[in-house]
Amino acid sequence: MSRVLVTGASGFVGAHCLPLLVAKGHQVHAVSRRRPSAGICRGVSWHEQDLLVPGGPSKVIQQVKPEMVLHLAWCAAPGLFWETPENLGWVRASIELMQAFVEKGGRRFVGAGSCAEYGRNLGQCTEDSTPLRPATPYGTCKNAFAQVLFSMSSAVQLSAAWGRIFFLYGPHEHPSRLVAYVIRSLLQAEHADCSEGHDILDFIHISDAAAAFIALLESPVEGAVNIASGRPIAVRQILEEIARQIERPELLRLGARQSHLEPWKLWADVRRLTKEVGFVPRYDLRDGIRQTIDWSKNSAATPA
Amino acid sequence: MSRVLVTGASGFVGAHCLPLLVAKGHQVHAVSRRRPSAGICRGVSWHEQDLLVPGGPSKVIQQVKPEMVLHLAWCAAPGLFWETPENLGWVRASIELMQAFVEKGGRRFVGAGSCAEYGRNLGQCTEDSTPLRPATPYGTCKNAFAQVLFSMSSAVQLSAAWGRIFFLYGPHEHPSRLVAYVIRSLLQAEHADCSEGHDILDFIHISDAAAAFIALLESPVEGAVNIASGRPIAVRQILEEIARQIERPELLRLGARQSHLEPWKLWADVRRLTKEVGFVPRYDLRDGIRQTIDWSKNSAATPA
Repeated sequence: MSRVLVTGASGFVGAHCLPLLVAKGHQVHAVSRRRPSAGICRGVSWHEQDLLVPGGPSKVIQQVKPEMVLHLAWCAAPGLFWETPENLGWVRASIELMQAFVEKGGRRFVGAGSCAEYGRNLGQCTEDSTPLRPATPYGTCKNAFAQVLFSMSSAVQLSAAWGRIFFLYGPHEHPSRLVAYVIRSLLQAEHADCSEGHDILDFIHISDAAAAFIALLESPVEGAVNIASGRPIAVRQILEEIARQIERPELLRLGARQSHLEPWKLWADVRRLTKEVGFVPRYDLRDGIRQTIDWSKNSAATPA
Repeated sequence: MSRVLVTGASGFVGAHCLPLLVAKGHQVHAVSRRRPSAGICRGVSWHEQDLLVPGGPSKVIQQVKPEMVLHLAWCAAPGLFWETPENLGWVRASIELMQAFVEKGGRRFVGAGSCAEYGRNLGQCTEDSTPLRPATPYGTCKNAFAQVLFSMSSAVQLSAAWGRIFFLYGPHEHPSRLVAYVIRSLLQAEHADCSEGHDILDFIHISDAAAAFIALLESPVEGAVNIASGRPIAVRQILEEIARQIERPELLRLGARQSHLEPWKLWADVRRLTKEVGFVPRYDLRDGIRQTIDWSKNSAATPA
């Protein structure tokens, strides 16, 4: 049991991590810009702090004095996060967080990276051998912080790991994101306009991703670790699976939207996650989609 | 003529840049932790500010509202700078500086990188094609900031360049650094204990390096630019040149110190500097060493 600080605690990954940490008996402190108005996980101490304000990360570390940090905060506004200058602020804030943590004697730091650190079209990505050629400011900034973290961690005796998240789906996903959009549209008997779905990606259910982060945090594994299923799948296959389960294949309009970018081809080698961290996923894609559809049906009754 | 802010203004490169900027008619603002007690260049407005304090860079930008920034500040303590956690602080401070500059409408940002961003043993280094495999936290952190700077500059409409400095020598070099140490020792008729000098490096006189930075700042060239002579030379050749000019070859003890590291082999492709920036150096190695020895003789009379 440790005193754990979770940043980005109100985000998609963060909100799924909090109950898992509490269930494991940790003393959990959460920080986000604003305390969520509802649905705060029991047993979590909440700290309102904008980490992008210089001095903000140090203040939270000073208040909490965590033994472990799970650093999930970063810009995530759909569509905008790839390019926004806020990426700069998150590198700066992440470094301040890491420095303040080390100065207060912190020992274990795990952060959320991204498959965008690899690039766009690299096929299977292995943590220590696939070249890193991020094509966006988001990927570049995530990776810049990771490189700084790795290069400095031995000098400051910090145990540090970096979970590179591939593609997520599941309950509480932002409604404008692909899987959430298609499920909601089909459940509401509306058309879902999609691209051809030729991207070949690696999807992991949000509950599994959160559990993988907790397993990584509690492990001694250092360096980059892919957070993914390890199973490449064409996006159209997922969309067809959703349509099949909801039994509304006629509402799914593949090719209704044009994509001007070359298709993504990016999936993970998950040997580090499964063999070194020892993580075992709970959902395969079919079960994960089913669980997400069920959640969507139940939550549709209540306003988002 | 522009309002130019120079960070690290009291450092080896900075101190040589200030009079060049003043001579070119710029309105020059200098910032360093402490105002130098003597030898401040006329026509320079000095600002005392520790840029490592969160909020410090924003404060200076707010005060000066520069049109151009020449960002030379970084940790430089001989021997220590490779590994010190202060490297983290400089990434953070550099990002804050860049962000504050952009927010105040700044247009041209040039920073000081290092050949250590390339690695240790890569032979000739070309800015856009030599792989970056920094072997130290210093090289990693310098490069992390450069990558962040490049990836974000087009999004925020900043014209940004990054001068990767190879090996410097000349007046006011820190006395514990190699060329300064050997010159001083031989002038004082003392032995200079050195390694075998098998490293093959690229040395540029500090006056040329400073002039190259000013030329880069005033040019529209973006991205990484090597600041170097482009001429590889074995370290023992430089040391023998010093001994020859001072006429005390018997005091130079090559091999008296053991190096446990494999030799550096690192020199610059300077086509970008000469062709795109249009920089013409003033010194070749022989003249540069002579000028440095002359300066050392004259400054030996007065305390450092």
